Amino acid sequence: MATTKIATADATSVTIRGKDLVGDLIGKVSFTELTYFLTTGRMPDAAQTRVLDACLVTLAEHGFTPGALVTRLLADSVPGQVQVAIAGGLMTVGEVFAGTMEGCAALLEAGVAEGGDPSDYCKRVVAEHRAVKKPVPGFGHGFHKPDDPRTEPLLTLAEDCGVAGKYIGMLRVLATEVDAQAGRHITINATGAIGALLLEIGVPANIARGMAVVSRSAGLLGHIIEESETRSAREIARLTKEAIPYRSDDQ
Amino acid sequence: MATTKIATADATSVTIRGKDLVGDLIGKVSFTELTYFLTTGRMPDAAQTRVLDACLVTLAEHGFTPGALVTRLLADSVPGQVQVAIAGGLMTVGEVFAGTMEGCAALLEAGVAEGGDPSDYCKRVVAEHRAVKKPVPGFGHGFHKPDDPRTEPLLTLAEDCGVAGKYIGMLRVLATEVDAQAGRHITINATGAIGALLLEIGVPANIARGMAVVSRSAGLLGHIIEESETRSAREIARLTKEAIPYRSDDQ
Amino acid sequence: MATTKIATADATSVTIRGKDLVGDLIGKVSFTELTYFLTTGRMPDAAQTRVLDACLVTLAEHGFTPGALVTRLLADSVPGQVQVAIAGGLMTVGEVFAGTMEGCAALLEAGVAEGGDPSDYCKRVVAEHRAVKKPVPGFGHGFHKPDDPRTEPLLTLAEDCGVAGKYIGMLRVLATEVDAQAGRHITINATGAIGALLLEIGVPANIARGMAVVSRSAGLLGHIIEESETRSAREIARLTKEAIPYRSDDQ
Amino acid sequence: MATTKIATADATSVTIRGKDLVGDLIGKVSFTELTYFLTTGRMPDAAQTRVLDACLVTLAEHGFTPGALVTRLLADSVPGQVQVAIAGGLMTVGEVFAGTMEGCAALLEAGVAEGGDPSDYCKRVVAEHRAVKKPVPGFGHGFHKPDDPRTEPLLTLAEDCGVAGKYIGMLRVLATEVDAQAGRHITINATGAIGALLLEIGVPANIARGMAVVSRSAGLLGHIIEESETRSAREIARLTKEAIPYRSDDQ
Repeated sequence: MATTKIATADATSVTIRGKDLVGDLIGKVSFTELTYFLTTGRMPDAAQTRVLDACLVTLAEHGFTPGALVTRLLADSVPGQVQVAIAGGLMTVGEVFAGTMEGCAALLEAGVAEGGDPSDYCKRVVAEHRAVKKPVPGFGHGFHKPDDPRTEPLLTLAEDCGVAGKYIGMLRVLATEVDAQAGRHITINATGAIGALLLEIGVPANIARGMAVVSRSAGLLGHIIEESETRSAREIARLTKEAIPYRSDDQ
Repeated sequence: MATTKIATADATSVTIRGKDLVGDLIGKVSFTELTYFLTTGRMPDAAQTRVLDACLVTLAEHGFTPGALVTRLLADSVPGQVQVAIAGGLMTVGEVFAGTMEGCAALLEAGVAEGGDPSDYCKRVVAEHRAVKKPVPGFGHGFHKPDDPRTEPLLTLAEDCGVAGKYIGMLRVLATEVDAQAGRHITINATGAIGALLLEIGVPANIARGMAVVSRSAGLLGHIIEESETRSAREIARLTKEAIPYRSDDQ
Repeated sequence: MATTKIATADATSVTIRGKDLVGDLIGKVSFTELTYFLTTGRMPDAAQTRVLDACLVTLAEHGFTPGALVTRLLADSVPGQVQVAIAGGLMTVGEVFAGTMEGCAALLEAGVAEGGDPSDYCKRVVAEHRAVKKPVPGFGHGFHKPDDPRTEPLLTLAEDCGVAGKYIGMLRVLATEVDAQAGRHITINATGAIGALLLEIGVPANIARGMAVVSRSAGLLGHIIEESETRSAREIARLTKEAIPYRSDDQ
Repeated sequence: MATTKIATADATSVTIRGKDLVGDLIGKVSFTELTYFLTTGRMPDAAQTRVLDACLVTLAEHGFTPGALVTRLLADSVPGQVQVAIAGGLMTVGEVFAGTMEGCAALLEAGVAEGGDPSDYCKRVVAEHRAVKKPVPGFGHGFHKPDDPRTEPLLTLAEDCGVAGKYIGMLRVLATEVDAQAGRHITINATGAIGALLLEIGVPANIARGMAVVSRSAGLLGHIIEESETRSAREIARLTKEAIPYRSDDQ
């Protein structure tokens, strides 16, 4: 029979993972600290909290992404149910969106687990991706060139906080190797950097997407509030209808 | 034509509501501060941040709620798509779950907007609810008796932070009146207190539910992680089948 | 303790609402008949089936609706999970989309329940809506003028099938009154007609939206299949970004 | 630039995939025929319609599945939004639920595409699955033993309709081989049979899950209606809380 370590309550108290909600958590920890605690089971130190805050802040908002579109269309169709509009937008945080973060983190995890000379591992990984003409996850950006402006500040922050270790080290070696085999500079992108930062603070690759979901929920709430003022959803629907003409099979 | 104030980007920068993501936000603000900024358009001061953190920390996790069940069932059915499992669980944050928070905040907003003697307003509101045998939203708890243990610490924290004003004042008058007309003590519950706290820091009633959604996303991620270890979903499905027997119309 | 009338199974049989799935349903009834049976508890006769088929056929597909956009955006973001893309699109079938169908059906239900002269009821209902400058639900169409081409064929089909009774009668009286008080012709729209048809076959107003959901699921599946071939989602996202410019608060 | 073949409309007509909605579809085709038309682009003949109806009827309802639980929990939490409750339940139709249908269909597709002696192909496929101790998708059932009661009627119906061809032939050879290598009888289950039937009528493996989604939407609507009468959701939540006790990490 299953048990749970997450929470329990009685008439006069609420307990979350062994801590008293009122005595230990409310007013004592930030929401970022609680998020770390709820997902890893450990309370973060100040450096880990600072790094997680930086990751959550970076992931929250990217403008009119597909997820923001979904949220705005739902906010217009189902008024008064913000949770439905946020839920719809969050569902877009799948392989396409979060894939490079998870994929890069998984490469770094595997490289660190393998041990040995990081250079050898990175040479092999980059060569394998080039052989099948796939980009190395966490590298390249369609828009931010030559460098993703978020990457270096994120890595520097981790170094300043003293959490930078084998994963960020591996990412830097991988970057050198990506450039060398490509014969030109390809940026580490923000999701690659965040994958490495999360590993350094003990958030494994398979939970990283969940952190993006938490973060993005705040951004999508902002879109719902703006949508209630500016009403873009019907304009988007109209634009789409005009832009995508009907062509019968017979034509 | 609609415009957006939320975000823009060019090759070397990302701008969020007029601030440079790299220069002004990453490493400079916490995720809680960013959430406030994205939803109100203003950067919070330290007191507002502390109050919002307390609200988000209180709302994140309540054990095996209906939302946690939905998330666990989805995590089991759609492996590897945490965003789908979180989205499903978040959809439960509707009128039933968030209603008392919104309802209580709306009563407080209306009372403050009306001006006049809070006592007169609260007497009338309580009497109106009693006349139709409806509980005053934000009061009473099925389980936490005689007092919800989260309420007083939340209100005290707001007072200590210096943000307690007309809304918390109105809530305290309302509480006196609820007890007087009921002829016994009925607790202010945590969602009533949080509704008042959010109003004090400038988060209106109609956005309060969104804050619960952001907060709950972290709790649900914790449930997915535990579900991947303890596998409760099929046990829940089996229990339910056994507990709810089939009875034909003909029987 | 709750019980269920819906389904049970043992090693050698499956029973659905008292009928044997293999002996009574598979190969014996159409999916439309089963849908009626699952939602009303009664097996429809041929006329009711024909009317429900006509309603489901009418509601399935309307081109690039907001729901189709949501589905296409999700299909692009979460490849290989058609159920997620369909679910997202279906969530748009809320008050805005299905509201006129439910609203019109509720008016007809109330009028028939009231008894008395339909003319008196309809006069009053139209006047009440005009007094608050609200359209009567089920009347008017932004695009199909002077008449929604779907309405008359739907009503005629119900009459030909012999199911037209008090609800369609009430709708026709209501239409006369809408025109009279407006001083011009306003079409009964397809959702108004469908609301009346569903009532005639015993599907109440509060279940009508569910029929739209079932029907629309097939249309959205068609959009996912086309999206996999023509890839419109990213074009839609790009168009939207271009169409909705960023304006800082400071500008 | 993308185009669409799905639908268009003008003031006096609606066109769906080249057919006039009013003249060609309403009252002329069943919802099952329209579903086939919307997903394949072809209007089915009578035999194909009968087979698709049988598949949709079989998949619609299975009692208190995880999807039904999700739908009931959402119906209780978000009253009045049936589309949200149906959407949540449909999201469970992922690899776990629909995987054997898709997996079996993919095996049959590959075997038919390979040509050659079906026996050789099936021997190899079964041996490969046994080597990695994986069940052959579409075979075995935890509950329906020795035979899934739905399978033979579905296959017989396809044969009676004259649509049984290479795919059902391949499934029967596969069944012989599964039994031979297992040394005992293992049933073809309903999802295996449905995968084969859908292939025979031209619905490929990657669309089969979508048909399950359409079908299941009707079943879930039935659960919402029953839930509104019998209120099982809170009982389920209570049962779960009792069944899954809290154990602190410290214990």
